[in-house]
Amino acid sequence: MINVGVIGVGYWGPNIIRNFYAHPKTNVVKCSDLRDERLAYVKKTYPVIETTKDANDVINDPRIDLIAIITPVYTHYELAKRCLEAGKHVLIEKPMTSNSADSERLIELAKSKNLQIFVDHTFVFTGAVAKIKETISSGELGDLFYFDSVRVNLGLFQHDINVLWDLAPHDISIMQTLLNLKPESVVATGSDHLKNGIENIAYLSVYYPDNVIGHIHANWLSPVKVRQTLIAGTKKMIVWDDIEPTEKIRIYDKGIDVIETANQVYDMLIQYRTGDMYCPKINSAEALTVEVDNIVACLEENQKSLANGEDGLMVVKILEAAEKSLKNRGQEVKI
Amino acid sequence: MINVGVIGVGYWGPNIIRNFYAHPKTNVVKCSDLRDERLAYVKKTYPVIETTKDANDVINDPRIDLIAIITPVYTHYELAKRCLEAGKHVLIEKPMTSNSADSERLIELAKSKNLQIFVDHTFVFTGAVAKIKETISSGELGDLFYFDSVRVNLGLFQHDINVLWDLAPHDISIMQTLLNLKPESVVATGSDHLKNGIENIAYLSVYYPDNVIGHIHANWLSPVKVRQTLIAGTKKMIVWDDIEPTEKIRIYDKGIDVIETANQVYDMLIQYRTGDMYCPKINSAEALTVEVDNIVACLEENQKSLANGEDGLMVVKILEAAEKSLKNRGQEVKI
Amino acid sequence: MINVGVIGVGYWGPNIIRNFYAHPKTNVVKCSDLRDERLAYVKKTYPVIETTKDANDVINDPRIDLIAIITPVYTHYELAKRCLEAGKHVLIEKPMTSNSADSERLIELAKSKNLQIFVDHTFVFTGAVAKIKETISSGELGDLFYFDSVRVNLGLFQHDINVLWDLAPHDISIMQTLLNLKPESVVATGSDHLKNGIENIAYLSVYYPDNVIGHIHANWLSPVKVRQTLIAGTKKMIVWDDIEPTEKIRIYDKGIDVIETANQVYDMLIQYRTGDMYCPKINSAEALTVEVDNIVACLEENQKSLANGEDGLMVVKILEAAEKSLKNRGQEVKI
Amino acid sequence: MINVGVIGVGYWGPNIIRNFYAHPKTNVVKCSDLRDERLAYVKKTYPVIETTKDANDVINDPRIDLIAIITPVYTHYELAKRCLEAGKHVLIEKPMTSNSADSERLIELAKSKNLQIFVDHTFVFTGAVAKIKETISSGELGDLFYFDSVRVNLGLFQHDINVLWDLAPHDISIMQTLLNLKPESVVATGSDHLKNGIENIAYLSVYYPDNVIGHIHANWLSPVKVRQTLIAGTKKMIVWDDIEPTEKIRIYDKGIDVIETANQVYDMLIQYRTGDMYCPKINSAEALTVEVDNIVACLEENQKSLANGEDGLMVVKILEAAEKSLKNRGQEVKI
Repeated sequence: MINVGVIGVGYWGPNIIRNFYAHPKTNVVKCSDLRDERLAYVKKTYPVIETTKDANDVINDPRIDLIAIITPVYTHYELAKRCLEAGKHVLIEKPMTSNSADSERLIELAKSKNLQIFVDHTFVFTGAVAKIKETISSGELGDLFYFDSVRVNLGLFQHDINVLWDLAPHDISIMQTLLNLKPESVVATGSDHLKNGIENIAYLSVYYPDNVIGHIHANWLSPVKVRQTLIAGTKKMIVWDDIEPTEKIRIYDKGIDVIETANQVYDMLIQYRTGDMYCPKINSAEALTVEVDNIVACLEENQKSLANGEDGLMVVKILEAAEKSLKNRGQEVKI
Repeated sequence: MINVGVIGVGYWGPNIIRNFYAHPKTNVVKCSDLRDERLAYVKKTYPVIETTKDANDVINDPRIDLIAIITPVYTHYELAKRCLEAGKHVLIEKPMTSNSADSERLIELAKSKNLQIFVDHTFVFTGAVAKIKETISSGELGDLFYFDSVRVNLGLFQHDINVLWDLAPHDISIMQTLLNLKPESVVATGSDHLKNGIENIAYLSVYYPDNVIGHIHANWLSPVKVRQTLIAGTKKMIVWDDIEPTEKIRIYDKGIDVIETANQVYDMLIQYRTGDMYCPKINSAEALTVEVDNIVACLEENQKSLANGEDGLMVVKILEAAEKSLKNRGQEVKI
Repeated sequence: MINVGVIGVGYWGPNIIRNFYAHPKTNVVKCSDLRDERLAYVKKTYPVIETTKDANDVINDPRIDLIAIITPVYTHYELAKRCLEAGKHVLIEKPMTSNSADSERLIELAKSKNLQIFVDHTFVFTGAVAKIKETISSGELGDLFYFDSVRVNLGLFQHDINVLWDLAPHDISIMQTLLNLKPESVVATGSDHLKNGIENIAYLSVYYPDNVIGHIHANWLSPVKVRQTLIAGTKKMIVWDDIEPTEKIRIYDKGIDVIETANQVYDMLIQYRTGDMYCPKINSAEALTVEVDNIVACLEENQKSLANGEDGLMVVKILEAAEKSLKNRGQEVKI
Repeated sequence: MINVGVIGVGYWGPNIIRNFYAHPKTNVVKCSDLRDERLAYVKKTYPVIETTKDANDVINDPRIDLIAIITPVYTHYELAKRCLEAGKHVLIEKPMTSNSADSERLIELAKSKNLQIFVDHTFVFTGAVAKIKETISSGELGDLFYFDSVRVNLGLFQHDINVLWDLAPHDISIMQTLLNLKPESVVATGSDHLKNGIENIAYLSVYYPDNVIGHIHANWLSPVKVRQTLIAGTKKMIVWDDIEPTEKIRIYDKGIDVIETANQVYDMLIQYRTGDMYCPKINSAEALTVEVDNIVACLEENQKSLANGEDGLMVVKILEAAEKSLKNRGQEVKI
C-alpha cells in the first residue's frame, strides 16, 4: 500500500484525491489546504482522510510515501523541494515549475535521494494519446510532418500566469510524447487584450529537426470550445477531436506521393492519395486512473514514468523559451 | 456596355468569363491563353467569344474597356502594365503582384492614366464577409480583440509559390477588410516538408495597433478541409465556418467584463457573460457576381472598389513581410 | 424538512438519493433494495442513511413523508398503493404503472387520502424543455404542426419491457408537456429482431386534433446515439439536439405563407420564409435538481406538479394503446 | 450511337439532357416542352438540339431510339405508352406511374415490343448506394435487421402529389435495392397541415419477412435538411449521411451477441460489441452519369437495368399501399 498526501485541494485536487482514494494499492492519508471550506469539503466526502492547514503536517508525516502537489505554479519548487528533502516521492501538477533551473534542481535532488518525480501531464494517459502513440510507433503514419493543436475556449482567466503557461502544457506534453524529438527552437506571438501583461491568446511554433514543425494555438477568449489536433505523416494523417464523445480519432489514408522527374524540383510531380478513413476504438478509462496505475507500477518496479521529471523539465524549457519569444514578438529562442 | 477581355483561361478563368458573360452590362469580347485546349473549351462553350494565343491581341483590341488578368502571379506586373499603357482598366487575379514595388508602380501608372485597378479578392464580396463587416461596423462586437483564420486542406501543391502566397491572400484581404487597421509588423513560421524551398504549411501573425492581433494558418497538407475564422470583440464574438452550407456565421453574445478593483491589475475581477447565439441570414449570391456588379458600378460612377489597387498592395506588403519572416524563423518584419 | 424514503437503488436510484440528499429542504431517511451490494453502496457513500432489504420498513416508517419508488415497472402499482395507504406522498419512476387502470386507481387513492403523486418524467424539468415550452407559450411558433422525436442508441436491452415502454415515456411526457393537447389515437409499428416478443425498434404516431401529429422513433439497436426533436409551427420551427453540449436548441425563423388564390386549393400559392436562426441560452441546472425543487414547492404549497399522476396516466394510456397497435401492425387505437 | 429524345425540360430535365449530351455513346436529338422559355433555354445552351412544343414530334421522330419522360407523374403512363407503341425505349422519371396497374400495362407492352423500360431511380446509381450494396452483399453486416431513412427539408410543396409520392420514391428504391426482399405489408401515417388533402409529412413502415422492417420519414416542412439512413445487421451497422460532403458512409463494428441460457427467453443474455468504425472511400462520380452508362450498357447488351420497369412497379406498389394506409390512419395494407 502506498500512502499518499495531498497539498492543495482547489479545482483539480479533488480528482487527484478521488483517484488515489479509489485505487486498491494507494491510500490517501492526509490533505492540506489554506482554506477552511476546502478542508471541510474533504472531511465531508472522505471522513477517514485527515486534514490540516499546514503543508508541513503532510510533508513531515512519517507514514506518507508520495505527496501530490496541486497548488499554484509559483509554489511548486519550494514545496517539492521540501517533500523530496523529507524523503517523499512527488507528483507535481503541470507545469512542473516556474522556470527550468528549478526543475533541474528538483531532478538533481530526487536523483540524489533515489526518489521519483511524477508530473501530472494527465493527457499523456488518455486512451486517445495512447492510441495515436501506438499508431505512430507502428510506422503507420510514415515520417512525421507536423503536429498542430488548437485549445481554445471562453476560459478561466488566470491572475498569475498567461494562457501559454495555463493551457499549452497539455499540448506540449502531448506533442513531446508523440513526436519524441528534441526541439531546436521556439517562436511565439500573442496579445494581452486586457493590457495587464498576461497574454490571453498565444500562438507557439516549435521547430524540430528534419523540417518537422509543431504549432499550438492557446486562447482564453474564444466563443466556442475547440480541442483539435492534426498530425500528418508521409503515409497517413490523423485528426483528433477531443470534444467528440466517442469518435475522437480519425485516421485518414491520405497523403501525397512525390515523383521526382529528370527536371527535378521545379517539375516535381505530386500525386494525391485518398483512401478510407477509420476511427479506432480507444480506451475510455479516466486518464487520471491510468496515471495512478502508472505511478503505482513505477514505484513498485522502480521504473521511469511516462511523465517524469525530465518530461516536466522539457515542457518548462519550451514554455520558458516561448515566454521570451512572446515578449519579443516572435524572436526565435533556441532550446 | 463594358467590353471585357480575358488573359488566361486556366482553373479560375472560366468563372470570370461566365460572370462577365452573364452580366447585363458587360460583354466578353476576346480571350487569350497559350494552350489550344483551353481556347477550344471557350469556343465550344461560348461560340461568340473570340480567342487568341497572343495576349497582345487582347491588350491592343480597341473595343475592349477592361482586361481580366487570370495568369500566374509572376506574370501579373508585366501584363497589367501593358494593359494600363494601352488604356484599359484591369482586374488582376490575387495576389496583385510578386512584390510590393511592382504593385506601387501599377497604382502610379493607373492614376496617371485615370484608369482603375481591381484586384480579385473574391471573398471580400461574399455574403458572409458583408454580414460580418456590417456587424462590426454597427458596433455590435465592441472593440476588436483578434482575427484568427484557418484555411487548410489536402490542396493543390503549387510549383512557383508557397502556401502563404497561394492561400493567405484570401484571409489577409478578408482580415484587412474587416479590421480596417494598418498592420505594424508580421511574424511567420512554417516548413517545406518536401525540402524544395516551397513551404506547404505556414502560420502568420499580424500585429495591429492597440493589441489587436491577426493569425492565419495556411496548410496544403491537412487530411480535412477547414475554413474557420474566429473574431472576438469586447461585446460579442463571431465564428464563421465557411464549410457549413447554410449556417455559416454564428454570433455569440459572449464575453468578459473587467471590474477593476482598488488593488488593480493583480486583483482585476473578470466576469463572464454568456447569452444567446444567433445565425443571421446571409446573402447567398455567388461572390463573383457581386464582384462584377461592384466593378460595373465603380466604372460607371468612377468610384473606388472594395478591392482596389491599394487593397491589393497591402496584401502584397503583408505577404512580402511574411515571406521574409518565414525564411528567418519568425523574425519580426515591420510593414 | 421533508423526510424521504427510497425503494430501489439500481441504476437510477443513486441519482434520486443524491439529489434529495443535497437539497436543503429534504432529508433521506431510509433506503431499501433486495440486493446487499446496493445497500452496501449506499452505506459507504452516505453513512447516515439507514438501509433495509424490506420495502415495508420504508413504507411503515412514521418519520417518512415521501417515498421514491425506483423499481421495475411491474412493481410500481403494488408498492405505490401500499405507500399511499400508509399515508405517504409518492414519487414514481416512469412509466407510472404497467396499465392505465392501475394508474387511475392510484390517482383515486391519492385523492381520497389527500396525498400527492409525482411521476419521474425527468426531461420535463430540463432547461431545454422549459425554454421550448416558454417559446411555444409566447406564441412565437404560431400554431403547431408536428412534434418529431428520435431517441436511438446501442442501448440496454430490457428483459421485461419493450423499447416503447423503456424509451418512449421520455418523449411522450415531453410531447404532452409541450403540445398540451388531448391525443385522439395512436398507430405503432416495430419489430423484435431477437424474436422474443420484446420489440427493440418501434415507431409511434400520435394523432391530435386539428391535424397536429406526433411521432417517436425509439430504437435500442442503433450504431449512433441520436436524440433529436423537430417541432414546427406556422411561424417558426425548432430543432432540439440533446447531444449537443451547449447549443441544444435552435429556433429557425423559417416557414411557409399560404396565399389563397381565386382558384383555391389546387392553385394555392406557397411562399417560403427563411430568416435568422438563434440558440437561446438555456438553464443548465441538473433536471433532477429542478424536479426536487418542484416537489418541495408542491408539497409546501399543496400545488399540482408539472409531472403529476394525471400526467403519468396519460403517458401510460398512450403506451398501452401503442402496445396494442404495435402487436396489430399499425391498427389505429383510440385513446 | 443511341439517339435520345427528351419530353419535359423543367427542374430535372436539364440534368438528363446534360448527361446524355456529354456521353460519348448517346446523342440528344430533340426536346419538347409546353413552355417557350424552357425551349429557349435549351436552344441557347445546346444550339444543335432541336426543340418542339409537341411531344408527338419527339415520339414520332424515326431517328430516336430512347425517350426520356421527365414530366409530372400523372402524364407518365400516357406518354410512355405512346413512346413504346412508337417502338422507343423509355426512361421514365420516378415514380414510374400514378398507379400500379398502369406500370404493369407498360411492362407488358414493353415486353411485347421487346423494348426496355428504365426508371430514373437516380440514387441507386450513387457511389454511396453502390458501396453499401457491396458491403451487404459481402456478408459484412450479417443478417439485416432494419432500414431507417429520414429525408426532410423545407422543401418544394407539390400541387398534385403528396410528400410520399414526391420524396419517398428515392428511399423506397434505395431500400428495395439494398434489402432485396419482397415486402409483406405497409403502414403509413401523416398529416396535411394545409388541410388541402396533400400530406406534407408522412411516416412509412414496410414489413418484410423474417422481422426485417423498413421505415421512411418524408417531410416538406422541416427547418433543417436531413438525409440520414441507418442500416443494422447482426454483425455491423451503417450510418449513411448524404449531407456530408465526403465521409458519407460510416460502418460500425458494433452489435449484439445473444447468449441463450438454459432459462431461455427471459434470461437471454445480450452482450454488446463495440469496435472500430471506418468510412470507406466511395465513387464520387455523378449518379446520373453512372445511370446513363448503365442504360447504354443495357441497350448494347440487351440486359436488365438496375432500375427497370419491375423495380419501378414495386416502388409504385408500395406508394399505392402507403397512400391507402395513410388515408386510413395506419391501416395495414398488404402488398
